[in-house]
Amino acid sequence: MDATPGSVGTSASLTLRLGQALFSFASLLLMSVGVEFYSYTAFCFLVTIMGLLIPWSCTLAMVDMYSIFVGSSLRLPGLMGIVVVGDMVLSILSLAASCASAGVIDLLLRIDRTYCPPKFCGRYQLSTGMAFLSWFLTAVSALLNLWLVASW
Amino acid sequence: MDATPGSVGTSASLTLRLGQALFSFASLLLMSVGVEFYSYTAFCFLVTIMGLLIPWSCTLAMVDMYSIFVGSSLRLPGLMGIVVVGDMVLSILSLAASCASAGVIDLLLRIDRTYCPPKFCGRYQLSTGMAFLSWFLTAVSALLNLWLVASW
Repeated sequence: MDATPGSVGTSASLTLRLGQALFSFASLLLMSVGVEFYSYTAFCFLVTIMGLLIPWSCTLAMVDMYSIFVGSSLRLPGLMGIVVVGDMVLSILSLAASCASAGVIDLLLRIDRTYCPPKFCGRYQLSTGMAFLSWFLTAVSALLNLWLVASW
Repeated sequence: MDATPGSVGTSASLTLRLGQALFSFASLLLMSVGVEFYSYTAFCFLVTIMGLLIPWSCTLAMVDMYSIFVGSSLRLPGLMGIVVVGDMVLSILSLAASCASAGVIDLLLRIDRTYCPPKFCGRYQLSTGMAFLSWFLTAVSALLNLWLVASW
């Protein structure tokens, strides 16, 4: 069985996983340090999902590293099923969290500037942008792995 | 080639398409008639996406009906590619619109009840719920068609 580029155990997959972990970490850091994110449900949701995405991406990055450096493939049907379902669920949740946050930021900017001072609002916007990038990479991983599983 | 249940040209697909069209129409109607949706970016986005989803679902429902009643399969590679990409894009956009609207409704309810009188807010919530159902059915269609294309 040839590996689809980007599926578990390839170097493209490792790059995607590291990108996901990096962007999720940046989003979490920007949203949780020094700003009042806990006043808004959408921002709490974003922090929770980014907190879930970091360990998931790091674990799969380690699986990829093991496959690349040890040379043994870990593409077992059971494992691939878990990876595809996990990626799908996390990509849906991260898109949901990013969009909810983007909607809330837009509304905060419209209603009244006092709700969203420029210092905080810039952080919220940057964090949401990073969450979108992280969603994009997770969705790419999910689709490539699904493609591999479907073509077995 | 066996058809995956739910892929273009099956009766399961027709049911999914009719469900999508129905829920999108309900969401559009609840959001656009008699409420001030145009004051909020997220609600305008929801109305736009639901307005796109209705003709898309109806067109594909007609393709399914043609396949079922005439008995000739329209599962050509080019057509399937367009259907998969269109379904993917519309399911991402409809999830984005639903989540942004949900985030905005939650914030409106928290900030001040005057921004969201019960009569309007109930409509917004119901419309967002319908949009979520419509997203779910579109995502199921997209996945089933992707599975069919990948397993060719």
